Amino acid sequence: MANAYFPAPVENLIDWFARLPGIGRKTAQRLAFHVVSMGEEDAKAFAAAISAAKQEITFCKTCQNLSASEVCPICSSAARDHSVICVVSDPKDVAAIERTAEYRGLYHVLHGVISPLSRVSPDDLRIKELITRVSAGGVSEVILATDPDTEGEATALYIARLLKPLGVKTTRLAYGIPMGGHLEFTDELTLGRALEGRSEI
Amino acid sequence: MANAYFPAPVENLIDWFARLPGIGRKTAQRLAFHVVSMGEEDAKAFAAAISAAKQEITFCKTCQNLSASEVCPICSSAARDHSVICVVSDPKDVAAIERTAEYRGLYHVLHGVISPLSRVSPDDLRIKELITRVSAGGVSEVILATDPDTEGEATALYIARLLKPLGVKTTRLAYGIPMGGHLEFTDELTLGRALEGRSEI
Repeated sequence: MANAYFPAPVENLIDWFARLPGIGRKTAQRLAFHVVSMGEEDAKAFAAAISAAKQEITFCKTCQNLSASEVCPICSSAARDHSVICVVSDPKDVAAIERTAEYRGLYHVLHGVISPLSRVSPDDLRIKELITRVSAGGVSEVILATDPDTEGEATALYIARLLKPLGVKTTRLAYGIPMGGHLEFTDELTLGRALEGRSEI
Repeated sequence: MANAYFPAPVENLIDWFARLPGIGRKTAQRLAFHVVSMGEEDAKAFAAAISAAKQEITFCKTCQNLSASEVCPICSSAARDHSVICVVSDPKDVAAIERTAEYRGLYHVLHGVISPLSRVSPDDLRIKELITRVSAGGVSEVILATDPDTEGEATALYIARLLKPLGVKTTRLAYGIPMGGHLEFTDELTLGRALEGRSEI
């Protein structure tokens, strides 16, 4: 959608914003105008932040999470339990689990889930790296913490099948009613799983 | 909300995205991850686009629209009718009117509307510049094309009052049923205005 209604540098910036996921043309316009109205220093710092994030960030060679160093702080920490690996689809899931302060093991970030519709095959994910890691030994449990939706489930099952021959304990996060939830408003699938997974008190 | 779940350059970029209007923390995270996964060249070009938009864009000294030159292409065009000025609140309104290809006059961009709630007073807008421009002579009509909402109306009325002593013809865009709209679903205010503004066919 090339038009000459805005000066070229503005059109160009709109194009860049519009390429970001979930940002439409109108939002991109709004963001570009905001940049134009920013202070000179701020705009410079924003541009530098983009360059820095791209240049300084790499993937931890062990867990594949975003990292500013070759091995991320979690993987290189002696305080963590290196025998447990929690497999998640995205770096933001690592952040979510870290916020609970309940988990002391390591992670493995797949960077996606298997999704034939979006043309994401197992080879596009960091599954090989996980298998190599587990094969190297010293791992007693792999927790499959992909989302409990169709693609997350399929990915977990796929990985569980690959891990089976390695003889490592493979677990999945518990399904159930979310804390603060109401029985009445819980869908039957979740409620069924909650019943199935009931525990003694 | 400082946390150490992401490497510092990523957190920093998330912070920058989150400062943009309408971008929340979660969206900012998604955008930052996208930048990290961009190609090296693309990230560089994106950063450069931000710097360029800020550095190369200024306001046209005549119409106050965004411009890469001191006087924008519209104001410096001999093909436009320099005796008509269409007053709009934002550069994107200029783009909207240009898309109609119906208007051959010039513009004046206020960069906002009068809004006591958002603490935008007439002095924060480019109203002085408009008055100076009209006072200089050669203008036969000023079209007030601010949005037909409370603030846009108030701004139009405010400007109309200032223009009155200058003896220039001041008009407002027509109100009515939008093309493709349905009488049934048109609010009574719009319908009332449409009746009031009816024309012979």
